[in-house]
Amino acid sequence: MSPLENLTAAEESETWQELQEALQAQNTETTRTILQRLDVEDQARAISRLTQENREALPKTLSCQDFAQLLTQLPEAQSIELLESIPGERTAAAVACLPPEISSRLLRELEEEESTEILEEIEDTERLSELKTRLEYEEGVAGSLMRGNPVSFSQETTVRQLLDDLHDHAEDYSDRDIQYLYVTDNESKLTGVLQLRQLFWAPRDKTLKELMIPDPLSVSDQLDFHDLAEIFTKRPFLGLPVVDTEGKLLGVVPRNAVDRETSDEQTELYLQSQGIIDGEELRSMPLIDRCRKRLTWLAPNIILNLVAASVIAANEATLQEVIALAVFLPIVSDMSGCSGNQAVAVSIRELTLGILRPGDFMRVVMKEGLVGIINGTLLGILLGIVAALWKDNFYLGGVVAAALALNTVLSVLLGGLVPLLLKSRKVDPALASGPILTTCTDMCGFFLVLSFASTMLAKLT
Amino acid sequence: MSPLENLTAAEESETWQELQEALQAQNTETTRTILQRLDVEDQARAISRLTQENREALPKTLSCQDFAQLLTQLPEAQSIELLESIPGERTAAAVACLPPEISSRLLRELEEEESTEILEEIEDTERLSELKTRLEYEEGVAGSLMRGNPVSFSQETTVRQLLDDLHDHAEDYSDRDIQYLYVTDNESKLTGVLQLRQLFWAPRDKTLKELMIPDPLSVSDQLDFHDLAEIFTKRPFLGLPVVDTEGKLLGVVPRNAVDRETSDEQTELYLQSQGIIDGEELRSMPLIDRCRKRLTWLAPNIILNLVAASVIAANEATLQEVIALAVFLPIVSDMSGCSGNQAVAVSIRELTLGILRPGDFMRVVMKEGLVGIINGTLLGILLGIVAALWKDNFYLGGVVAAALALNTVLSVLLGGLVPLLLKSRKVDPALASGPILTTCTDMCGFFLVLSFASTMLAKLT
Repeated sequence: MSPLENLTAAEESETWQELQEALQAQNTETTRTILQRLDVEDQARAISRLTQENREALPKTLSCQDFAQLLTQLPEAQSIELLESIPGERTAAAVACLPPEISSRLLRELEEEESTEILEEIEDTERLSELKTRLEYEEGVAGSLMRGNPVSFSQETTVRQLLDDLHDHAEDYSDRDIQYLYVTDNESKLTGVLQLRQLFWAPRDKTLKELMIPDPLSVSDQLDFHDLAEIFTKRPFLGLPVVDTEGKLLGVVPRNAVDRETSDEQTELYLQSQGIIDGEELRSMPLIDRCRKRLTWLAPNIILNLVAASVIAANEATLQEVIALAVFLPIVSDMSGCSGNQAVAVSIRELTLGILRPGDFMRVVMKEGLVGIINGTLLGILLGIVAALWKDNFYLGGVVAAALALNTVLSVLLGGLVPLLLKSRKVDPALASGPILTTCTDMCGFFLVLSFASTMLAKLT
Repeated sequence: MSPLENLTAAEESETWQELQEALQAQNTETTRTILQRLDVEDQARAISRLTQENREALPKTLSCQDFAQLLTQLPEAQSIELLESIPGERTAAAVACLPPEISSRLLRELEEEESTEILEEIEDTERLSELKTRLEYEEGVAGSLMRGNPVSFSQETTVRQLLDDLHDHAEDYSDRDIQYLYVTDNESKLTGVLQLRQLFWAPRDKTLKELMIPDPLSVSDQLDFHDLAEIFTKRPFLGLPVVDTEGKLLGVVPRNAVDRETSDEQTELYLQSQGIIDGEELRSMPLIDRCRKRLTWLAPNIILNLVAASVIAANEATLQEVIALAVFLPIVSDMSGCSGNQAVAVSIRELTLGILRPGDFMRVVMKEGLVGIINGTLLGILLGIVAALWKDNFYLGGVVAAALALNTVLSVLLGGLVPLLLKSRKVDPALASGPILTTCTDMCGFFLVLSFASTMLAKLT
């Protein structure tokens, strides 16, 4: 297979046109052919450019399986957006078609109203009850990540019976990971595991109980995915069996579900640190939703900014005397903010890796304090020299240098500690560390510059 | 297995003490026992608290395999740090012990000098040449992610011969993913693939050529991991065979190597956006390195800040007249910076997902422009009201409102477009978007406030 080539701009706009027309006409075959011709990225781009009317035509035009497949291949944020923009009654069938570990992930992320609507419309009662069970799990625990219906056999099964079953159900198993076979007792409790290849040389009349590796490693359905990730780091397994409190086999968590969860957590961390806090935003979402989501972050921020700037208002007299300070106020506050953000990032990263715990205050103080003193001093001197040369006033340089140095120390200490404090209060550090840090370092920065200046006003004017 | 419990503070400090003593005494057995008793996170914490002397004692004290295992279990950034802090001659043996796909990842991240030293000390010439071949691949291409030595057989092999081979080498295969067997012709070219379970029912004297699925999907060793990720999104494979330009089988890229690469990319994105740009920082790294790495980002930033603030210096006269403006300068620049960063995050995310391409300027302009106008107007009015009420001056409110509104529009446009521009110039958007955006929005923000004010100076004083 050759590397995937993206379409040229001309091919692309032609394809988009064709797709829109096929959907307009609700032409199942053409729509399907166009989508199959596109690679994953081009598919995502095409879907994101559909008119609202044509989006709604998608589930009507495509077969249930094809629409379900599309939902699997699109980026998750886009599948969620697509489901939210189409009435639930039209998408329910496709959602029921999806493997439950995928549909439950999507339903979990949908607006409450939309997911309820979809669940109400699912006709397959077995699938419905499985979905509901899954949705009861908290996000990120083993139960929410597992694949159900593991390939399991009673321990009394003979090798011959097992091989016959595999043969008879070859179709069902064809796209499943059956590296391992799970063995249960007559109460469905997990008692052992078998590697598929062990069966090649096993006498056909032996029972699985005689062959299996007994007491295999299993995890509780309530185990958090960070702990799962830790087990997968230590052991080379491709999947781990999940059991309930009684030891009954519920499913298997595949390694890649845990890897994907880790990746999602990192994505969310990045988005939150940049002020995209209420789930992912895609530009194909409705304008008003996008504005609202962004304002959720911006509006509180404007209040925090006003609080910080009130320090300037309180010291207007000093500023009036030495107007040159106005140049340095934003520099001092911004630079210390940058230093502090670096410390936030290191703390959040160390917390994620488990190297740091919320109680490790002293370690952070020691380690950040030293960096703050060194970097603060260097940056302070740099900025101080600029200030002194510009206004030919040594004291102005001193005020600026001292304020930046001291504020950098405060800021890296705070940046290092705030994530620990938030984490120990069960608040998401990625969400709140930035605004708290910025407000504090702005206030302190303004205060330090203006109050140092006011103590040596005579020398500055 | 019960959920993993972390140690209490008292147990922890006792364990650290024991570990330090065991390493001091170079007591292999005790060191090994202590490390095995700890879970992955506690291990990482313990290693990060070792004295430099005791770190250096690690490879001497642990067996080569145990030290290699430790390197596999620690967070990657920590393994790299550990290798860099110990002379290469002591760690070479353990690095040679690691599976090549892991050791080549680590070597790639080490300082040039350190990795050369390690490579020079590796005695196993076969391993050495394999490592060197791997290191020649660019980071993130299929060749750098694959596992070598796939389980492959000549297409002339009979099922009986194959089963005998599996049986004879059961030990070698025990911890490997042999879901699929790869079939090659007599020139080592990949010609087919077999699912392990197909063999259960195959007549023992058939050749693999008769049974295999011919012409399987394979990828070039030069394929980028984003394209790999796309294939894994579309297909449920656990691994993909990698071939060279002549079609010879080189290895297999496991799905989880691609997932891990995606996760690493997200982590790097977060760290870079927070100003940690030169690789991960851990607080166990030497102080001077940490300061230097952070200054690499801060020092250019101070220059950019000075450039932006020069706009204030050029308009000091206006500011002197209406000192109240000094309160709003940092608010306007900071708030527009926040709005712009949101747009940066959405663009980077859409670029990653492939929904957006570097050439999609008009789409970004349309989609961001509208958000900018709505949010800018709302935030502008909010801040304007505060300003007008505070100084009881309607015109001051107008100046502030107009400046924030206009600057927000500029800033979201710029924030949306800068990542596209950088990407099309092959510059990493995560690295440079933030500073470019902040500098521009600061300059514009200061300029807009001060020039609007100067045009209606009479009304403001």
